[in-house]
Parts: sequence; structure tokens; C-alpha cells
Amino acid sequence: MSHTAEIIAVGTELLLGNIANTNAQEISQSLSALGINVFWHTVVGDNPARLREALDVARHRADILITTGGLGPTYDDLTKQTICAAFGRKLVFHPEILEDIRASYERNLHTPMPENNAQQAELPEDCTIFDNPVGTAPGCAFQEGSVHVLMLPGPPHEMRTMLRRCAVPYLRALSAEIIVSRDIMTFGLGESFVDQLLHERMSHMENPTLATYAKPCEVRLRATAKAASREEAEAMLAPVVAEVRKTLGDVVYGEDVASLEEVCFALLQKAGRTLATAESCTGGQVAARITALPGVSAVYRGGVVSYWTSVKENVLGVPWELLDAHGPVSEPCARAMAEGARRITGADLAVSVTGVAGPDPDERGVAVGIAYIGLATPEGTFCRPVDAGKRRRDVLQNLIANHALDVLRRYLTGLPVQ
Amino acid sequence: MSHTAEIIAVGTELLLGNIANTNAQEISQSLSALGINVFWHTVVGDNPARLREALDVARHRADILITTGGLGPTYDDLTKQTICAAFGRKLVFHPEILEDIRASYERNLHTPMPENNAQQAELPEDCTIFDNPVGTAPGCAFQEGSVHVLMLPGPPHEMRTMLRRCAVPYLRALSAEIIVSRDIMTFGLGESFVDQLLHERMSHMENPTLATYAKPCEVRLRATAKAASREEAEAMLAPVVAEVRKTLGDVVYGEDVASLEEVCFALLQKAGRTLATAESCTGGQVAARITALPGVSAVYRGGVVSYWTSVKENVLGVPWELLDAHGPVSEPCARAMAEGARRITGADLAVSVTGVAGPDPDERGVAVGIAYIGLATPEGTFCRPVDAGKRRRDVLQNLIANHALDVLRRYLTGLPVQ
Repeated sequence: MSHTAEIIAVGTELLLGNIANTNAQEISQSLSALGINVFWHTVVGDNPARLREALDVARHRADILITTGGLGPTYDDLTKQTICAAFGRKLVFHPEILEDIRASYERNLHTPMPENNAQQAELPEDCTIFDNPVGTAPGCAFQEGSVHVLMLPGPPHEMRTMLRRCAVPYLRALSAEIIVSRDIMTFGLGESFVDQLLHERMSHMENPTLATYAKPCEVRLRATAKAASREEAEAMLAPVVAEVRKTLGDVVYGEDVASLEEVCFALLQKAGRTLATAESCTGGQVAARITALPGVSAVYRGGVVSYWTSVKENVLGVPWELLDAHGPVSEPCARAMAEGARRITGADLAVSVTGVAGPDPDERGVAVGIAYIGLATPEGTFCRPVDAGKRRRDVLQNLIANHALDVLRRYLTGLPVQ
Repeated sequence: MSHTAEIIAVGTELLLGNIANTNAQEISQSLSALGINVFWHTVVGDNPARLREALDVARHRADILITTGGLGPTYDDLTKQTICAAFGRKLVFHPEILEDIRASYERNLHTPMPENNAQQAELPEDCTIFDNPVGTAPGCAFQEGSVHVLMLPGPPHEMRTMLRRCAVPYLRALSAEIIVSRDIMTFGLGESFVDQLLHERMSHMENPTLATYAKPCEVRLRATAKAASREEAEAMLAPVVAEVRKTLGDVVYGEDVASLEEVCFALLQKAGRTLATAESCTGGQVAARITALPGVSAVYRGGVVSYWTSVKENVLGVPWELLDAHGPVSEPCARAMAEGARRITGADLAVSVTGVAGPDPDERGVAVGIAYIGLATPEGTFCRPVDAGKRRRDVLQNLIANHALDVLRRYLTGLPVQ
């Protein structure tokens, strides 16, 4: 039997726009992988009447209801009470859970437990308890008729851990059909071009399906097949993936990978090479994205954020004459920055970025969106000039950082870097 | 008359979890500032039947419906067609809009327009057209009875621009009551402690209200007042804000500011001082956060990501003997890193970070969550030891980066850095 889920996030902070609903995103990803259709996300505030209304609508159009939020210690945390009222269940106090909460507070946060945490130890009768190893509020699940209700906490890292450890195993037991997806990641083409290239195939497919999701210059294609077994779904996907790769060529940077930096990390490990960075307009973003990956110290030595020209000169050793003749946003400067970073860190490879992220042109009149990516290697130094167009500063910083990682990716896979 | 809004995001990519619904967040922020209550967020896929169902529910519980997404050039972009069917309106083709789209394509992206963009030039009859200066799909608004329907594009930067330039002015004309909010930002206390400190006040207030929103160690308190005029609302807020500041003391780092880095930027400008960074476990994140701010080159010179010990030694000049005796995650190393960064960049101040972001302890057995923040200044070098507890790598990197910025903030405001 095929299930339909609705994710109900509870929290006035979501409706006020203080935070984005990343919990719904993560739960959707997990449900998708389990073959459970998510047809609705709903957000309501910390308001019992409207939460009740949302529950009443949801239980008639979905058979799996997953709530996030409102399990915390504060006075406006009312999810358990409202769900119990809607489904006619009592709340039961669990003294042993209160002791666990107290102990985890003292062990992990090195502080005594505030007493208002006590209401977190109350749970609906006859429920499956979901432990919370990284926070205080436990979650739970119960079945009422054909409807399953799961309650997860609001703080994203608590939700994520409980989702993986408790909710996914609970849901896996309910579902029969398997959905398998393959994400094909590309960098360098716009969404409507990818769409146009693949339109014939995309618009007529029902199973497998093929869909595009776009960020600037980065398009993810997701091929998805439903079948009775994983093997069958995989066999349905293989020809679709092969055709997409053939159509798009070497702008495809990976399959089922999260990001360019993840691909670069794997390629560096495979090649047994170390990396350094030298960044101007991306201001440390390339380094930060690389070092967000656990274990990356095996290949990443470090880098320089040479925001001022004097730092390019004094730390990276870019000659003053070069800066004076060509300016800091130039191909010669990008090359010299990469070579400098390689020299001072002793890394095998160094990638550099210099450009104009805006909002204003640089003092020499170089336009917003112009950047140069340098790559110093044992075989010589390469450069990719980039014209990313006039976009917002944060979009440009991200896009130019992607170009830097794409240059590295192409070099490490033996492709021309341009 | 008081308005109630529902935000309906259209896109299967949201239900599959490929992206978070940041559009709903941003629209909520803007509506909140206009005094319009947002009581619901809904997400549906690129499915005309379910979008129709969502519209039919929404028009009976809200009088402002704002959709995002589904205005694009691809075959699954069906928002305009479905809304027109629900509200009994025709779609009208606008040749002059198609010419604008073609021109913007060529001017900004330096490529010819793919022909499937043509459907973007169709809009409901009798609507207010919302220009899209940063993308191709225009948006629009119309009124049907007492209900206003606004359609905005899905790509976040296009949505944001259109929201600010077109949707907010359209909505401002509808609303009478003013809502004014004041965000009080704190770093260093947990949410339940803040909540406990302020519980008496928070649970009994109706207007103004006071609410807390938490990230690890960072709590934002939002005081909100509704009144007939801005002046009246401001007068209601002043005593609440004063009391919160008095209760919480110097963990309050600012009012109506976005982040610690924004506060540090302003303090550095005011003091006429320049900054450098030296980062190990945060891997460039402090630098990236600072350089995300436009205009920050006035005060930020640059920095070093000294991920490997050899980079600490060779680039920052941390003595080998010191590293050998105390290890890279130690107070002496943090101090030497900061002093090194200050020396090689010539900055007035340098902040350093060394610590263990996990998932594993460092090779000397220093536990995950232990970090040291150094700050080199003309008056000497300071250090804050941090025990952030055992948390996920990304949470720890963010939290330790916050500590670095908080040390800088406290130094620049004349407070002890610990």
C-alpha cells in the first residue's frame, strides 16, 4: 500500500520568518528515499486552535502525519497536548525520562537542568518513544486507525538525529514500494538550457521521472524510479542516467554527491595530492566549504584570505610590479596568488580566486561579476577567466567559489580547466 | 481592517526536500513588518489538482494569498494557469513582456533566450504586473472579491527583489495597523535560561509580546507591539527592551542587527581599526562571514586558514617548540596564531581560532568541542578557552566562529573577553 505524508511544522518563529523550515526539507528527503509520497507541508504558529485545524485537515488527506516543534520546555510548547486532544489520548508522565533529561543536561552542557524541562517527560499513552540523544525533548509515534502520527522536536540537529535513528526505521516498516533516485550534478549550464536539451525526454516520462533543480549555474537532475525491488528500480534508472550523461557531457560533475567540494575531496584523496587556497573576493568561502567536510585535513593544508592587496603582496608574495601593472583582479594576479599559496603551504596544488563580488566595481573599474580562478600545479599554472554577470553579492561569491572548485575538479579528472 | 495571509509555495523540489522554503521565510518577515498576520504556510508540488485544493482551502481562511514558484519557462510551471482556473480568469499574452525577457537575457546573461520562455509573457487579465528586473518571469497581483492573490517567482533572489519592489508596496496600501518589532540579540546563554529569566514577563504579555528564537548559544528575543502609529508602538516597546537588556546584561550584543559579524564591522569602523583572522578548526568560516558583508574591505585585511600544523608554523610563525610542548589546540597556540596573523597582515587586531570540531578528538586526545580563541591587540594578547560540549561538526564550527566574533565584540566595547 502506498502512503501519503503531510509534514506539519509548529512554530510562530516560522510564520514570523525568523527561521526557514529546513526540518520539512530534511524529512521530505528521508521520506522520498523510503518511497513515501509527501504531498503537503504545512506551517502553523504556536496556537493550539490552528494546530488543531491543521491536524483535522491533514488526517483526511494523508495517512502519515509528522509534526516538528512544540516539544520544548517553554510555555508555548503545546504540540503534545493539542495532538492528544485531537486524537483522544491522555498524556502520561515518565519519571525515568525526566532523570535522563537531567543527566544529559549535566553531562553534555555542564549545567544544571532548568526545572521547566519537566513537561518534556510527558508523552501520549501507548506510544513508541523516540529517544533524543542530542537534546532534551523526546519524540514519539502512535497509530490511530489507519493514521500514523509522529512527533519530532524543532531544533534542527535534534530533529535530524531522531529522524534518522527512530522515525525512518518506524516508517520503513510501513512501506512496501521502493523509490530509488539518482542525482546527476552539473555545473556550468543554466536550468532552461538543461531543460531544453532534455525536454523531449522529461515531459513524457512517468516512471522513471526526470526533474531539474537549479541554483545559479548549478543544475541537479534527479532521475527517480518506483518499483517492487531496489534491483528493478536500479535497472530502470540506468539507461536514463546514461542518456543524460551523454547529452550533457563533462558539465556533469558527479552522481549522488552533495557538492563540488565533496567531489574535489574524493579526487584529491584518490590522486594522493594536497591542496591550498588563496582567496580574495570569496573571502574564505572556498576554504570554509572544504573544511566543513569531516576528515578533509588528509588533503587540505590551509590557505590565505588575501582581501587587501598588501596581503597578496606580503603574505602570498605577489610582486608589487604585477599588481601595479595588471591590478588585483587580473589573470596574472590569480596565477601569482595560486603560486604563492602553493609555495608557502607546501601543498601540491593551490587554487586562487580574485574577482569583484560587488555591489560596486573595483577601484580600477573592473565590473561586478568578473573573476579569475588560478590553479598552481606541478605541471604549471592554469587560469579560468569568469564573467558571472551582474548578480547579488552572496550569489556571486557562491558562484565564483563554485568556479574555483570546478577548475580543481576538471584538472583532477584530466579535463581542460576552461 | 486586519488581514490574514497564507503563503503557498509551489514546487515538487520542496516536497522532495531538494531545497528549503526560504521564500516563505522572507515573505513572512516582510508581512510581519507590515502588520499582516501570517497564519499558514503551505507547500504543494507541481500538481495542478493539489494546488487547486490548496487554493480552495486558503481562500476561505485567509484574505491575502501569496504564491511562489511555478512561473518559470518549463513544462511543469503551472501556477498561473491553475490560479486563473480557480478564480475564473483568462490568461492574456503580452508581446512587450516577451521582448523585455529576450532583452534581459541577452544583456545580463550574455546568451540568447531559449524559446520556451514565451509562456512567461502570459498573465491573468486585469492584474497588476510585477516586473522582474533580476530574472525573466514577471509576477502579478489581482483582487477577487475580498481576496488578494499575489504571484511571485520561485528563484529566491528573483522573489526577494519582486517582494521588496512590488509586493510590499501593493500590500502596504491594504493595511492600517502598524506592527513594530525590536530584535534583541544575545550570545552566550541557552534558550531555556533566557526563557526562565524572563518567564514572568513573557507569559503574561499580549501587546507588546516577547518571544525567543534560539540557535546554539545564540538567542534572539523579539519584542513586538501593534498600534495605530509607529510612534505609539515605539513608546510601548521602549520599557520592554530596557527591562530585557537590564535582566540579561552584556550577553546582549545588539538590537536589530543581523549577526555578530555585522556588530563587529560597525565597531571596527567606529574604532578606526583593521582586523585579520587566523583559523584552524573553523577553516575560513570567520573570514567568510566577515567578507559576506559589503564594504568590509575598509576594516578587514585578510587572514590565514592554518589547517595543518605546518601552516601554523611556516605562515603564521607559531614556534615549533610551542606546538610541540602544548599542541595545536591550546591557549599558547591560539595566542601565537593571533600574534602571527597580526604581524604578517599589519592589521591592528587579529582574532584566532584553534579547536576540535570533530567528529573525532584530535591526535593528542583533546575532546570534541574544546577550542581557544586568541585576540592580538596593541594592548596585548587575550584568550578565551571554550568548552562547547559534544555537538555536530557544523554546529560546533558555527558556534566556535561565534565565540571568535564575540571575543572581538567584547574587546571593542571595553568588556572582559571571557
